[in-house]
Amino acid sequence: MQLALSTWQEVEEYLQTRSGIIVPIGSVEQHGPNGLIGTDHLTAEFVARGVGDAIGCMVAPTLAYGMSQHHLGFAGSATLRPATLMLVVRDVVQSLAVHGFRRFFFINGHGGNIASVTAAFDELYAMRSLGEADTPVRCRMKLWSDGPRTRALSRELYGDADGHHATCTEVSVAQFYQPQAIKQAQLAPHVAPPSGGFFEGADYRSRFPDGRIGSAPALSSPEHGERLFAAAVQDMTEAYQAFLAY
Amino acid sequence: MQLALSTWQEVEEYLQTRSGIIVPIGSVEQHGPNGLIGTDHLTAEFVARGVGDAIGCMVAPTLAYGMSQHHLGFAGSATLRPATLMLVVRDVVQSLAVHGFRRFFFINGHGGNIASVTAAFDELYAMRSLGEADTPVRCRMKLWSDGPRTRALSRELYGDADGHHATCTEVSVAQFYQPQAIKQAQLAPHVAPPSGGFFEGADYRSRFPDGRIGSAPALSSPEHGERLFAAAVQDMTEAYQAFLAY
Amino acid sequence: MQLALSTWQEVEEYLQTRSGIIVPIGSVEQHGPNGLIGTDHLTAEFVARGVGDAIGCMVAPTLAYGMSQHHLGFAGSATLRPATLMLVVRDVVQSLAVHGFRRFFFINGHGGNIASVTAAFDELYAMRSLGEADTPVRCRMKLWSDGPRTRALSRELYGDADGHHATCTEVSVAQFYQPQAIKQAQLAPHVAPPSGGFFEGADYRSRFPDGRIGSAPALSSPEHGERLFAAAVQDMTEAYQAFLAY
Amino acid sequence: MQLALSTWQEVEEYLQTRSGIIVPIGSVEQHGPNGLIGTDHLTAEFVARGVGDAIGCMVAPTLAYGMSQHHLGFAGSATLRPATLMLVVRDVVQSLAVHGFRRFFFINGHGGNIASVTAAFDELYAMRSLGEADTPVRCRMKLWSDGPRTRALSRELYGDADGHHATCTEVSVAQFYQPQAIKQAQLAPHVAPPSGGFFEGADYRSRFPDGRIGSAPALSSPEHGERLFAAAVQDMTEAYQAFLAY
Amino acid sequence: MQLALSTWQEVEEYLQTRSGIIVPIGSVEQHGPNGLIGTDHLTAEFVARGVGDAIGCMVAPTLAYGMSQHHLGFAGSATLRPATLMLVVRDVVQSLAVHGFRRFFFINGHGGNIASVTAAFDELYAMRSLGEADTPVRCRMKLWSDGPRTRALSRELYGDADGHHATCTEVSVAQFYQPQAIKQAQLAPHVAPPSGGFFEGADYRSRFPDGRIGSAPALSSPEHGERLFAAAVQDMTEAYQAFLAY
Amino acid sequence: MQLALSTWQEVEEYLQTRSGIIVPIGSVEQHGPNGLIGTDHLTAEFVARGVGDAIGCMVAPTLAYGMSQHHLGFAGSATLRPATLMLVVRDVVQSLAVHGFRRFFFINGHGGNIASVTAAFDELYAMRSLGEADTPVRCRMKLWSDGPRTRALSRELYGDADGHHATCTEVSVAQFYQPQAIKQAQLAPHVAPPSGGFFEGADYRSRFPDGRIGSAPALSSPEHGERLFAAAVQDMTEAYQAFLAY
Ligand code: NI
Ligand code: NI
Ligand code: NI
Ligand code: NI
Ligand code: NI
Ligand code: NI
Repeated sequence: MQLALSTWQEVEEYLQTRSGIIVPIGSVEQHGPNGLIGTDHLTAEFVARGVGDAIGCMVAPTLAYGMSQHHLGFAGSATLRPATLMLVVRDVVQSLAVHGFRRFFFINGHGGNIASVTAAFDELYAMRSLGEADTPVRCRMKLWSDGPRTRALSRELYGDADGHHATCTEVSVAQFYQPQAIKQAQLAPHVAPPSGGFFEGADYRSRFPDGRIGSAPALSSPEHGERLFAAAVQDMTEAYQAFLAY
Repeated sequence: MQLALSTWQEVEEYLQTRSGIIVPIGSVEQHGPNGLIGTDHLTAEFVARGVGDAIGCMVAPTLAYGMSQHHLGFAGSATLRPATLMLVVRDVVQSLAVHGFRRFFFINGHGGNIASVTAAFDELYAMRSLGEADTPVRCRMKLWSDGPRTRALSRELYGDADGHHATCTEVSVAQFYQPQAIKQAQLAPHVAPPSGGFFEGADYRSRFPDGRIGSAPALSSPEHGERLFAAAVQDMTEAYQAFLAY
Repeated sequence: MQLALSTWQEVEEYLQTRSGIIVPIGSVEQHGPNGLIGTDHLTAEFVARGVGDAIGCMVAPTLAYGMSQHHLGFAGSATLRPATLMLVVRDVVQSLAVHGFRRFFFINGHGGNIASVTAAFDELYAMRSLGEADTPVRCRMKLWSDGPRTRALSRELYGDADGHHATCTEVSVAQFYQPQAIKQAQLAPHVAPPSGGFFEGADYRSRFPDGRIGSAPALSSPEHGERLFAAAVQDMTEAYQAFLAY
Repeated sequence: MQLALSTWQEVEEYLQTRSGIIVPIGSVEQHGPNGLIGTDHLTAEFVARGVGDAIGCMVAPTLAYGMSQHHLGFAGSATLRPATLMLVVRDVVQSLAVHGFRRFFFINGHGGNIASVTAAFDELYAMRSLGEADTPVRCRMKLWSDGPRTRALSRELYGDADGHHATCTEVSVAQFYQPQAIKQAQLAPHVAPPSGGFFEGADYRSRFPDGRIGSAPALSSPEHGERLFAAAVQDMTEAYQAFLAY
Repeated sequence: MQLALSTWQEVEEYLQTRSGIIVPIGSVEQHGPNGLIGTDHLTAEFVARGVGDAIGCMVAPTLAYGMSQHHLGFAGSATLRPATLMLVVRDVVQSLAVHGFRRFFFINGHGGNIASVTAAFDELYAMRSLGEADTPVRCRMKLWSDGPRTRALSRELYGDADGHHATCTEVSVAQFYQPQAIKQAQLAPHVAPPSGGFFEGADYRSRFPDGRIGSAPALSSPEHGERLFAAAVQDMTEAYQAFLAY
Repeated sequence: MQLALSTWQEVEEYLQTRSGIIVPIGSVEQHGPNGLIGTDHLTAEFVARGVGDAIGCMVAPTLAYGMSQHHLGFAGSATLRPATLMLVVRDVVQSLAVHGFRRFFFINGHGGNIASVTAAFDELYAMRSLGEADTPVRCRMKLWSDGPRTRALSRELYGDADGHHATCTEVSVAQFYQPQAIKQAQLAPHVAPPSGGFFEGADYRSRFPDGRIGSAPALSSPEHGERLFAAAVQDMTEAYQAFLAY
């Protein structure tokens, strides 16, 4: 059930029996020569809607822009600063809490968001702990690719060549979601250099010249994407339900 | 050309000859009994992509969440505070300016965004005027429904019953874009009460009990939406090109 | 009744029967070769005090500094950044609300303030809508020159040559208010170039070399100012009372 | 020379030989039963303009609102929070520095501003010390009543009964500046209780029931005000010139 | 080499050959019935100074206060909000970078700091990536207890009973560092309940009634502390040198 | 009683009869050729703990970093910006107030902190005065060297040569506290130039080439430090108790 495609009366009805919502969050950042700039938010949105379709839970509009400062060396990447992203998360959670939402499950497509979004959760909890806020909101975030089924399938399909950025897994899922935007590109070397950490955008680019980290997304395919998507929906459904039950 | 569906190398190539980009911006807020909560961002995105398809210009991922505090009396509405929205606009513009984008045309689906986004533009310009920023970014925002062709067609189709919130026009365009989410609802009175202004969410709800202002969206249809969409794409294409030429 | 010229006990007494207050707001910015840098705040203050004299309502001290980044290309102009101006408006409203003021009518001398001050109002309302604030403050802002009597008289006196910045109207009212500071200056061309929009300070100056937009303030006179002032006081009195009654 | 009553071309000419400016700053806060709410900003403005008249230096529009949280227990008092006031000072200084002003002398009417404004100066200097700002602005603030001539005359006229808030000195100067607003009020006790410090507004009011601290402003008169004003203008002229020469 | 115990001339000399510095960071939060509130910052400081003694690198004064909102249900705990902690980290790094420090290695005693401090690093890098900052600062943070030698020894000494908060390891190291403050306390149950996550302070306390998570710090001793300290100094020395070499 | 060396249960017990706490605050900044960079926070901490030992009151962990922008011209100095320091003070006070602390006595080692910390107190009080905060916290700050006994002894020992920065007094107390870090250095001239004010870091360095202001810390000794420490502990004990009783 997509919030964007609902009326306020439908949401009101939903809230009579439930108080959980899924918020997809991603990024706008380069994903190597054959990966889409929207990969992270498209895949998070796709998986989140898959969970919504599977169990009828509410799915909020996607937070497309994330914390991507390290990708600003590549054209088209856009970042929210950490402090900005934190305020966005705060406002979205506080708004939805007005109506009765209490459990916010962020399905995340981008590792770079983790620190800022976790810090945003801590800001929200701090308001409670300091006696400023009355409403007990509870938040959790998971990378959609980080559940047991998805990790197992990624490993089976790509082994170590799945990599750490512009991974085979995410490129495959994006190809399955947006088949009209499958890109052909030279990927040399086949497997991109592994990560040992990075700092600002220029540093990132000097270490990872085509944007990929440790991945070989020439291996990606929409067929893989279909299987990975199914695994991720199952993983995230399970994680969401565990969160509600916690 | 959607930024989200491009690779960084495609964006780099685009920037060799162009420096303009369209940013769709909307809201997550109630649109009356038969309007979608996502109406504003869905329609802004739809029109923006229409312009992108028409003339090949770059279209950024949609800023779905806007300034909607006055709708928080209705379930499902979410707001960014003005200060938050201003930071989001700043960060997105500054990020894209790193790569060479210089002209930012915001296609807007929500009147409530105007003050905050205009203030955000002023913040960006102030940095230049105060000698803090070197890059000359230039921004303009237009409501997609506010061009001459679209206004004329809205008037022809609905007259005064188009209204000011949950307008027949926007509901029709959303129905054309998302036909699977056309809602049936009782709309009583047929035409909602007119606006004389409003303050916080509770005040808004007391004045406009079902969320609409001055509109009769029972008149909306996807067929109207198709015609209105075409008009809006033409209007916005013209406005974008006038902006580039200014 | 000027707040600045009252004692706290007089204000306490006022609040036993009334809860409205007028806040004049202007700017510190160039107004062309014969216009005063203080034009906007002087005229807003003058009209506001005129309303206060007419109907005995409370008039707060003037917010002299506004959002004027676009004028920083001309010596003597000063701006508050939008975010700063928003905090000023917030603090002033919140402070006065402590005592029982509930209706805040901003008489504005400067179009450039509209976005930031409107955004400030939205911040205040958002606190209410999000459940953070208990006190129901209500705010409205009007340009003193934008009521029906004043617009009609401006048109009668100057037609299109009234212009958009350093208007004949505001220069006349300032001359009537501060006759010791009437300036003689060469105004070439007689009518300044019209506006098509502007961005940062340097851009503004390149488009409007002497600071004026579309105006011919050589036509201004303190005699005109007297008539325009009377019209503006009537317009703003009416607008204030309509606001109280809303 | 008042900035508000100058044209931009007059300011430009001033800056060819000088780079100093005086900024009056005060407050909007109760001043006891016979003191005006505007006492601090009116007197600061009056003295600042006196200096401007004496030596032809530029005087900026008055910052009427200051840091007055401790007076919020009395009707009509308004405060800027410290962080807001700091941003106001920053923006005003940065704006005027764009044009070539380098020395900012704040003539202050309110002791409660000292911490916040000093902290604002430190913010500005920190930007330089941290390598973020190129323009070497220099700021100093003085209470207009704290020069040697004025202190001596206050002591001669009132002795210890001058007090610490709603002082005889400031009430006299305000009476001289605004004779139409001289108030008659019962002042019991004749000398208000002395200060031992205070915290929030309610605490202040419980310690100082009519708002005064240690003063007997029944002793004030416009005649005293005239003499004190003359002394203060001399003191501040000297202090300003010493600052320019430092 | 402790920065606090050096003169500026000694630091100047250090910077002629080196540009790295260690910043200890901890928290002020409950550590169960026999753990010190200062455990995290005391141990981080102790290990950091141990590294400084071992290899002569510079050690900055300890950031004692961290992000501890979840511990506010227990007396004496204090938190910096995430946004505050981020500004502290920014200012410390920017200040030291003025003098030539370039590599900032944070030795961390508290897992709850990771999100906020990582977000702070991202803010700093974002300034570079967005073209606002020229100085290439590089930061890394490690938990002092998370190196290979220390983890192995903790496991050997305590197995799973080391736990996740108020761990045997940290309590032992604190006992070795501050033997005068070894506490005797009833620890029932011997092993505290394991973690499944927590939200605000009240939630934390309801899940972990005496403050510990999964640990049995009755097992702790200063003798263990001595061995664990030695291991941690070796681990952190290695990690610091790897960071400098990266 | 040090908070850092207590358990939460010990703090809980303390709060059953008391609600006061001492917070030492200092700086990280140059103190001339023979003064330690940590002088201000080391001495504030030392005196605060002395008071804690004398009367059993609670002493919080030291805020080592203060507002030191003016020292950034000397290697090793670090500043928090005023706005950052204000947030730190706010968070620490608000956190401890959750548990029942109500009286916060800051023992300060650095004059440069006064404006920012006072402004922070005003922010806290403003929240109360504006009706946003319920908890009545009360704060006071004193320089440890500014009590009657200590001033008298400083004058006896050093006369005018005590100076204003890197004073003989503070250097002596630091030598007594950290005898292993007594420095030998050339101090020429014997007495550093006196202060007439300063602005940013570069300005400070140009006026005070070796960092000292008006002092002759070659006169300092740990023996003096012992006596000055005893005097300061007495002064601060008295001041703390007067604050509690106010
Ligand atoms: Ni990705
Ligand atoms: Ni709409
Ligand atoms: Ni104007
Ligand atoms: Ni006063
Ligand atoms: Ni710990
Ligand atoms: Ni010192």
